[in-house]
Amino acid sequence: MPSTRQRNTVLATAATVSAGALTFVAPPSTPSAARIEPGVATGYAAASQPQSSAGAVGAAMLAAGCAARVTTKGKGQRKAVKVAAVSTDTEVETDCINSIRFLAVDAVNKANSGHPGAPMGQAPIGYLLFAEEMAYNPTDPTWVNRDRFVLSSGHGCMLQYSLLHLAGYDSVAMDDLKQFRQWGSKTPGHPENFETAGIEVTTGPLGMGISNAVGLAAAEAHMAAAYNKPDFTLIDHYTYTIAGDGCMQEGISHEACAYAGHLGLGKLIAFYDDNGITIDGHTDLSFTEDVGKRFEAYGWQVLVVEKGDEDVGAIRKAIADAKACTDKPTLIKVKTTIGFGSPNKADSHDAHGAPLGADEAEATRKQLGWSYGEFEVPDHVYAAFKKQADAGKEKQAEWDKLFAAYKEKEPELAAQFERAVLNRKLPDNWEECLPKLTPEDKGKATRLHSQDCLNAIAPVLPEFMGGSADLAPSNMTLMKCTGDFLKDSYCERNFRFGIREFGMGAVCNALSLDKTGIIPYCATFTIFTDYMRSAIRIAALSQAGTIFVTTHDSIAVGEDGPTHQPIETIPSLRLIPDLTVMRPADGNETAGAYKYAVERSKYESRPTMMAFSRQALPNIPNSSIENTLKGAYEVVECEDPEIILIGTGSEVHVCIDAAKDMDQKVRVVSMPSVEVFRSQPDSYKESLLPKGVPALSVEAAVTTGWGEFSTAQVGINVFGASAPGGTCLEKFGFTAANVKECAERCLKGETGCLSDGSQGKH
Amino acid sequence: MPSTRQRNTVLATAATVSAGALTFVAPPSTPSAARIEPGVATGYAAASQPQSSAGAVGAAMLAAGCAARVTTKGKGQRKAVKVAAVSTDTEVETDCINSIRFLAVDAVNKANSGHPGAPMGQAPIGYLLFAEEMAYNPTDPTWVNRDRFVLSSGHGCMLQYSLLHLAGYDSVAMDDLKQFRQWGSKTPGHPENFETAGIEVTTGPLGMGISNAVGLAAAEAHMAAAYNKPDFTLIDHYTYTIAGDGCMQEGISHEACAYAGHLGLGKLIAFYDDNGITIDGHTDLSFTEDVGKRFEAYGWQVLVVEKGDEDVGAIRKAIADAKACTDKPTLIKVKTTIGFGSPNKADSHDAHGAPLGADEAEATRKQLGWSYGEFEVPDHVYAAFKKQADAGKEKQAEWDKLFAAYKEKEPELAAQFERAVLNRKLPDNWEECLPKLTPEDKGKATRLHSQDCLNAIAPVLPEFMGGSADLAPSNMTLMKCTGDFLKDSYCERNFRFGIREFGMGAVCNALSLDKTGIIPYCATFTIFTDYMRSAIRIAALSQAGTIFVTTHDSIAVGEDGPTHQPIETIPSLRLIPDLTVMRPADGNETAGAYKYAVERSKYESRPTMMAFSRQALPNIPNSSIENTLKGAYEVVECEDPEIILIGTGSEVHVCIDAAKDMDQKVRVVSMPSVEVFRSQPDSYKESLLPKGVPALSVEAAVTTGWGEFSTAQVGINVFGASAPGGTCLEKFGFTAANVKECAERCLKGETGCLSDGSQGKH
Repeated sequence: MPSTRQRNTVLATAATVSAGALTFVAPPSTPSAARIEPGVATGYAAASQPQSSAGAVGAAMLAAGCAARVTTKGKGQRKAVKVAAVSTDTEVETDCINSIRFLAVDAVNKANSGHPGAPMGQAPIGYLLFAEEMAYNPTDPTWVNRDRFVLSSGHGCMLQYSLLHLAGYDSVAMDDLKQFRQWGSKTPGHPENFETAGIEVTTGPLGMGISNAVGLAAAEAHMAAAYNKPDFTLIDHYTYTIAGDGCMQEGISHEACAYAGHLGLGKLIAFYDDNGITIDGHTDLSFTEDVGKRFEAYGWQVLVVEKGDEDVGAIRKAIADAKACTDKPTLIKVKTTIGFGSPNKADSHDAHGAPLGADEAEATRKQLGWSYGEFEVPDHVYAAFKKQADAGKEKQAEWDKLFAAYKEKEPELAAQFERAVLNRKLPDNWEECLPKLTPEDKGKATRLHSQDCLNAIAPVLPEFMGGSADLAPSNMTLMKCTGDFLKDSYCERNFRFGIREFGMGAVCNALSLDKTGIIPYCATFTIFTDYMRSAIRIAALSQAGTIFVTTHDSIAVGEDGPTHQPIETIPSLRLIPDLTVMRPADGNETAGAYKYAVERSKYESRPTMMAFSRQALPNIPNSSIENTLKGAYEVVECEDPEIILIGTGSEVHVCIDAAKDMDQKVRVVSMPSVEVFRSQPDSYKESLLPKGVPALSVEAAVTTGWGEFSTAQVGINVFGASAPGGTCLEKFGFTAANVKECAERCLKGETGCLSDGSQGKH
Repeated sequence: MPSTRQRNTVLATAATVSAGALTFVAPPSTPSAARIEPGVATGYAAASQPQSSAGAVGAAMLAAGCAARVTTKGKGQRKAVKVAAVSTDTEVETDCINSIRFLAVDAVNKANSGHPGAPMGQAPIGYLLFAEEMAYNPTDPTWVNRDRFVLSSGHGCMLQYSLLHLAGYDSVAMDDLKQFRQWGSKTPGHPENFETAGIEVTTGPLGMGISNAVGLAAAEAHMAAAYNKPDFTLIDHYTYTIAGDGCMQEGISHEACAYAGHLGLGKLIAFYDDNGITIDGHTDLSFTEDVGKRFEAYGWQVLVVEKGDEDVGAIRKAIADAKACTDKPTLIKVKTTIGFGSPNKADSHDAHGAPLGADEAEATRKQLGWSYGEFEVPDHVYAAFKKQADAGKEKQAEWDKLFAAYKEKEPELAAQFERAVLNRKLPDNWEECLPKLTPEDKGKATRLHSQDCLNAIAPVLPEFMGGSADLAPSNMTLMKCTGDFLKDSYCERNFRFGIREFGMGAVCNALSLDKTGIIPYCATFTIFTDYMRSAIRIAALSQAGTIFVTTHDSIAVGEDGPTHQPIETIPSLRLIPDLTVMRPADGNETAGAYKYAVERSKYESRPTMMAFSRQALPNIPNSSIENTLKGAYEVVECEDPEIILIGTGSEVHVCIDAAKDMDQKVRVVSMPSVEVFRSQPDSYKESLLPKGVPALSVEAAVTTGWGEFSTAQVGINVFGASAPGGTCLEKFGFTAANVKECAERCLKGETGCLSDGSQGKH
């Protein structure tokens, strides 16, 4: 490997190879003044003549094996090299940054759709992360100790695609960039982890990404605390995110970032791209808070880079300062120019969400002195990124060796790590831990059965972790075998999310998408899933294995009244594609729901939402985990029914009671999960709910949608009321007597909603 | 009216009347040391023997007509009186505060459900507001210039009920307090404006109340700017709110409070009840941010009261300081003790959400030196509040005179004020402003028709105001006839909400619930209603006439991809009781939707949600406002159909195209609103969709629920994809060809979902 001096010599020798093909923004480079100074932006036009391309070619040589910076000698030495080679590095650096910019410009132009402005301003940050700072391996995008990157301002995804492409990820070839935002491409309009390897989480809905980053950093903190041993630092990575003005305005950023400050997540480094432009125009219109001061109030370190479009050194220094602060997350507020380099659209809303167009792209090339064509990237730029990717591969190889030694020294932990983290398997027969109940067992609220399940699972699955949005004593979600996950106790597993439902959901989604085998759960009242509905949706879309535990699932909430009584909530969650909703009726169904949710999280990385009762319920004779996993099954058996009563959750028991009073042949079906039942074989579905047999569904929720399974419905299509829970159930029609009466009408051929709760409106 | 000196004499003379029935916390009063000092809480036991009751009886005398402070002489004089009478006032004050506390304790005990702790800590704030600060008239709770009060920590509603009761609101008689949280009572478990006169907004879902308060303060700012004239200050009131730790943690508080700071709403005064306890325990567990610093970052004035349980003077001074700062909202951080006075439960989670119980209530009485029985309020306490209520009545009487003079001087504005604000009527034939289109008019996106409607309405209805969450150029929601509602332009009507959907929703709900006739609208992409779903629900529950304008209503969003493409969104909003969802298919249907929404807002104070297309759509020959108001109607007429195609929004046109290609007798129905159609007479419904005729519904959304109207469905039950909108529609099955094919299957008797979009999954 050549020394620094040798390297510079090589670069100088090679400088003629492609000179003339490159132009530079910077003034003619001299060893002492090559770094672009802040404030020279206005001098661009003068810099459009060709300059030395020594740096560029140097980088190409590095890729051919001369990489002085491909080193495993540690940070100190790397820094020395960089200082020595500052002039050439600066030029390569500029080319790398402009490559990012123009890939974004060109892809958005080609798609005739997208957001070029943000990538043009954020390119220097992206360059530093992917060409200098981050440890990653493009050939193994899921390496457990990789640094994580989240583009919270997901609309600027051409930044991320450009970076993944330059860094050598197969998932984003040049052809993929050319297919930006087209049908079937790997480069959709917002980053989608399930489409594109190298993307950690799905972003776009603003504020969610930075909240995911908090979750990834929390995962790192926990994994490090749980597995690292003296001389064996298995987990030790950073989480970086770039967030824009929109992210900062969204309430979820408050929730998640206040929580991150509370936790003191020192390895979370967030860039705030302070470009002052949103869709409506300048942020003066709506957004004049002091973001830095706000983050200081959260307990973050706050750093400022004034000239983020050009002052790469200042960003580099800020990252170093961020890393030096180990007990607080860091916000680096970087002042950038949206559409940087575009003579007519920079610093305006015009650069935000529309293509620059061919003419302006050309004018921007001129202004930035960029002589390459559309989608053209010079080799030395690829080389610069390859260097970092190669370093990442090397780091992973070292990690593999470390883990091999760890297996010798810490066989038990290593076995657990292999199972839970690397292979993402559950222990054999893990489900034997789940409680089994008989009708002789005292009936209790399913939220208490849920507590039993959580506490049965917790000792068996060390990767099981989560908590409640300040409703632990109501949701019954504390695990007794572990303590609180707090600043000084990252190895513990009870999360204290605070009253921050949306942030909680996004944090938990990231715990799953960290891909280190964590099975996250989070909890609130059923009604307050509304506060985090978007996080639940994104869990389903982005294949995050979050388990949403909710309690107080109907008007039986009682005295808290209609603000707290879900009516439409559970049916509305059933509408979200790829989400499974479970509403168990007793202890065994609760155990079944947990078996389903845990396995679906671990093996399929898919979310489950569960709704538990506040009130006590008896145990059903033939309930079981197996029956629950059919989605629906007979609880009162009847071979040749005249009518079928279908209940979910607490209403199963109302159906059972009604059936007892009826003279007809009645089958009662418990349907803990509509989605699971839908996925059963047609033969089973037809045998359980034969066509032609009248069926009455009973659920303390809106009746919309039940026509799929029942001919007539008992439900509640009005808001509830404040009164004791039993009174609410009675007044709104959830009594055996009313169900019996409706069943008789159903038998006579009446269809549709027979009891909608309006009788309870006073 | 007696002078100050006379008054004290009266008090002294009357001191024997009921002495012995009262006990006091304070040490024996002397003119110089009567005020309770901070820090004496531990000395309570010693104070349990009876003390002078001069203050108490004095208050009773005041009620009998001796009220020196029932004055119209202005603030300066009032202050002078108070200083002179400080000893007696302090004792009355303490009794008032303890009355509030014990009504809360007793009502929660009687209900055996509720939250006593917060009212016990917040009682001094409540006392100051309702007995000293606020202008209100219990006999006319909707007087336009009343001060507004919002209990954002709504679970502590016994504070508000106690205050309304003491202040003399008929809506909360003593019997109502005894019926706390019972079926049919006026005192539900959280404050509900639609149940209880005197409650401004419905709270409980945390963070929403303080956000409503921002909306009420914005309404005040606008009404004052719009109607006040020199010498005619029609509108000039404060908005007070009490928020707890939960409100501060919720993301919505960030959104709304940052917005309030941006707007510089100087008449918004928020108390932060910093009691350090949430359901999980001490806030140390999850909530360690510096709230005051955060609010300073938003541009608020921040004041601190260290001993809020006792230091009434400090709270009083803080309110004065808040009023003195006219260009910023003020946060008064008041350190209180949850369950103050309870010897065993104060400052603990035990006082939060459960009754104290009889024994602890007794112990608390002892500790606070309160000798009155359950639900017993001394007359002098009623008298103290009556004084303030009488002052409020007097103020309203003055206001009436002022308005009579205003009518002379400003007849035009006064007429508008009478129509829009006092009578809450729309101008005659207002709807004539709405556009009417024919098929010859160029087809365009319904979001553009929406823009036309907004701009047609804006000049006709000065009470029409609103805006977008930073999507004005996409939602097309700017009104051209007015400017931006900003700090220095409160008279304008375009709100620039920033990227703060949930806060926006809560602010708009409050604009309606201000009951000054405002018709508020707010806008975002259809998908991001998920971010404010809880505000939409509360609009429906609390009867707020907010118009939710949404655009980009289907997968036709296109390139932005599945994070931005609503699939389940519109159907899920249809599940919310009392919300009307409108999805127009063309220009006339858009006009019809606006006619419906505006009248429903103004006359019924109920919300409407509208979903508009991104893409252009043709105009339908027989669409009209009248047809739209039927909820569904024939667009391709057919007297004796073999099959009916039902479409909504953009899919109506797909149905029309499919029908053209079909050989059968086809009726095509446009159904802009499921809810409106449901409310039509059965005869109309049966004639439009006769039983026995196969019907195929086509909507680019999940198919759940359509069984109510159709026998078979075309929809999309999977997430969308990033590609041009036309490609998405085609790939997922929204083509005339696919609809025709499904219609033919439907004709052959197939039922259920015939096309679910899964053919589009690559």
